[in-house]
Amino acid sequence: MQRAVLLVDHGSRRASAHEQFIELGEQLRAHLESSHVPILVEIAHMEIAEPSIAQGISRCVERGAQLVTILPCFLSRGRHVVEDIPALVRAAVSEHPTLEWRLAPPLVEFEGFVPLLASALID
Amino acid sequence: MQRAVLLVDHGSRRASAHEQFIELGEQLRAHLESSHVPILVEIAHMEIAEPSIAQGISRCVERGAQLVTILPCFLSRGRHVVEDIPALVRAAVSEHPTLEWRLAPPLVEFEGFVPLLASALID
Repeated sequence: MQRAVLLVDHGSRRASAHEQFIELGEQLRAHLESSHVPILVEIAHMEIAEPSIAQGISRCVERGAQLVTILPCFLSRGRHVVEDIPALVRAAVSEHPTLEWRLAPPLVEFEGFVPLLASALID
Repeated sequence: MQRAVLLVDHGSRRASAHEQFIELGEQLRAHLESSHVPILVEIAHMEIAEPSIAQGISRCVERGAQLVTILPCFLSRGRHVVEDIPALVRAAVSEHPTLEWRLAPPLVEFEGFVPLLASALID
């Protein structure tokens, strides 16, 4: 089964935020490739800028994905993670009835997040 | 020199986001303690809820901090990271003229962030 991951950020009017998010997608793609993990990587913005979540999911499907993990690059279970992104995802996947999907947890729930923060302090 | 870290999130009206952020602070505190790194940990919200950034910085100073690292738990260099948080920090530290401070980069700039995301996919 072809898998894909859709990284989702908030969306920003700042070029610096856009560029860093595109770069994040490219780095994740390279990381998965070098780990021999055949997962497609796409990015989308929750709001403000394109590609939207619907466009990102369509792009995954066009590339052959049958299972998409939506990964919200948000800290915790605030409104965007609990309400806005799930609603946008549900609307988008309704256009792709055979697509399987799952929603990854927010960043604080990742094992390894606390050591990551600590790494910025222990130098 | 006594160091402290002030974790800053956006601030939310959702209890789930609050609880996860408080828990993050506690986990970081425990992680640093078990690594024998004597850095105080405090949390603050950029907006919406208290403690504010100013309150968080005051709390660090009250606890004896002479150097505070402000760590924005935000993905990338969007408006909050580039403008809002630095402005709030500058206003807050002006009340504590002997306090040294630094601003940590946003999460995408942490070495180890890409492998962290990948860890959610490689299972």
